[in-house]
Formats: sequence, C-alpha cells, structure tokens
Amino acid sequence: MRVLGVDPGLTRCGLGVVDGSGGRTVRFVAVDVVRTPADAPLAERLLAVGDTVERWIERHRPDVVAVERVFSQHNVRTVMGTAQASGVVALLAARAGLPVAFHTPSEVKAAVTGEGRADKQQVTTMVTRLLKLAEAPRPADAADALALAICHCWRGPMLDRMAQAKARSAELARAHRARLAAAAKGVSP
Amino acid sequence: MRVLGVDPGLTRCGLGVVDGSGGRTVRFVAVDVVRTPADAPLAERLLAVGDTVERWIERHRPDVVAVERVFSQHNVRTVMGTAQASGVVALLAARAGLPVAFHTPSEVKAAVTGEGRADKQQVTTMVTRLLKLAEAPRPADAADALALAICHCWRGPMLDRMAQAKARSAELARAHRARLAAAAKGVSP
Repeated sequence: MRVLGVDPGLTRCGLGVVDGSGGRTVRFVAVDVVRTPADAPLAERLLAVGDTVERWIERHRPDVVAVERVFSQHNVRTVMGTAQASGVVALLAARAGLPVAFHTPSEVKAAVTGEGRADKQQVTTMVTRLLKLAEAPRPADAADALALAICHCWRGPMLDRMAQAKARSAELARAHRARLAAAAKGVSP
Repeated sequence: MRVLGVDPGLTRCGLGVVDGSGGRTVRFVAVDVVRTPADAPLAERLLAVGDTVERWIERHRPDVVAVERVFSQHNVRTVMGTAQASGVVALLAARAGLPVAFHTPSEVKAAVTGEGRADKQQVTTMVTRLLKLAEAPRPADAADALALAICHCWRGPMLDRMAQAKARSAELARAHRARLAAAAKGVSP
C-alpha cells in the first residue's frame, strides 16, 4: 500500500510518500514541502498547494491520501488557512478517486514514537530511523508528512477492519430486526 | 457585474447569484442551498459542495466569486468544516479563472442593512426588499449568500479602486526612490 501523507498548510505544506508492506516495514519514496508567500492572495496560495498535490498524486500514484486532522486550539489565523488547505487536499484526492483518511497529530505521534505527546524532534528522529534515511527530513513539516504516511500504513488496515466489523454488525442488527418484525406478523421470513 | 456569493458550509452551503449595475441597483438571478449529510465522510461532503459550485460557475458565468470570510469564534467542529468548504470554493473559483473576494459577516451585514451587528432576520428582510423578491429566501444560508453577492456588488468596485490607488502609490514611491538613488550618484535618470 502506497500512502501520500499531507501535513496541510499555506506557508508550508508537507508532502511525504511511503510504501507499507502490510507489516511494520515501511519504505521511503519521496518527500517535499510546498511553500506559498504569506502576502499572496488566498486563492492563489490554495491553487499552488492544490496543483502540487495533484502533481504528486499523478507522479506517485498513491492508494490512499492521509491528511492531518486540523484542530483549532492553535493560532486562529493560521488554523483557518490550514483548514482551507486541508479541504483542498481532501477534495483533490477524492476527485482522483482516492480514499482520504484523517489522523490527529497525537495519533500520528503515538504511532511513530509510542507517545502521543512526543515533540517534533522525537517524531523526526523516529521517522529518520524507520525509513532508514541518511539524514533527517527538514523542515518539521516534511517529517510530519512522512510520519502521517507511516501512521496510516499501520493504522489504516486496523481502521478498515473496524469499519468492516461495524458494517457487518449493522447488517446483523438489520437482519435481526427484520426477523423480529416478521415473527410479530406471524410470518417466517 | 455578475457575482456568485457563497456562504460556505458542509451541512448547508448557500449559493446566490446577483447582477450589479455599477450603481446601487441589484438584480436577483438565482439562489440555492447545497446540503450534505452530517454522517457522510468529509471528502464526500467536500466533493458534493465542490461539484455544485463548479456547476453554478458553468451555468451562471459569474465575473467574480464572493466568499464569506470564516472566523473561528464559533463552534470549533463546525468552523473547521466551514473553513474546509471555503477553501474548496476558493480553489474551484480560481481554477475557473475567476477572482475570489472575501467579506466578513459584519461587512456583509453593514453593506445590506447599514448595521454590522444586524441579526439574520434583518439581513433576510433587506435582501428580499433589495432584490424585489416575492418571498423571503429560506433558509438563512440562502439569504446570506445573496447578501454576500450584494455586498460584493457595492464593495467590489471600491476595493478595486483602493487596490489600484495602493498599486499606484507604491509605483510612485518606487519612482521617487529611483530618482533619489540616481541623484545620490549624480546622474539624472
């Protein structure tokens, strides 16, 4: 499974591609950071981020796009731009026919370091080690995008199984209700 | 000038098209509200909003798209979805080659009612009157989208003149600095 991880942002948007094996092994494919000037109009900045994401989807052909789930605890101005960029990324992934998964920063940190409140340095160190990189990816947004992709390689299959189990139990519950309703009418279905 | 106003949102996204005459007269063209189910995956909801915005751009051929500027004072969960939807709207407008303008809720209220803290009912009443509608647009998101479009018809030309004046004064300042630099070197430019 090939995952494109995106740490959304307007000033810096991290992109990282990782191949997962199904097990714990992950392989580095590519990493980069798109930057857009803070004084450019918002629509232009979103265009630049969107064009790059689309180019990466075409070039690297991921099976899924994993995006950082944005929270609004942080700086209000920044978080709005980050949310707008994440909306653009999710739209373009969906338009390319790819599933889009969201992971919170603490899910990502917990997945790669074992600790949901790890700092940026710990995340970078673990990403460098897990992907056997010769040097640490810089800036932090690059490491974060790779961490997201790794997190999805490991959490994705579990989330899929959970979604399947949930769908199956909903199906069983529906069948059960149908049998009850039929029994109430004195008919066997 | 034809303006597509968008009150971004996932649960309800208002769309309103208005023709401006250059003066105070505004003419109603179209209004609608896109709804997406709260339990649908985020990427699907953004796809639905994006597809409708694109269809409206093709059908109504606006000259500009005006979008409500999102603030994060409100409910945190809602505002993230709203920001993501607004990012999608801005991206698709820009991809269609259209300028995108943002107006704050109080700019919109001040433009249509004369009062930046007007309530939803006052906005709806003024929109109905200004556009000579037989009945008030419902829900509030529909009226808000039309209010945004009216606001842009009136504020847009002023904002363009301000941007031109700003560009001209920057140009004059550049020319002035060039003359000073040339004079310092003892050369007349």
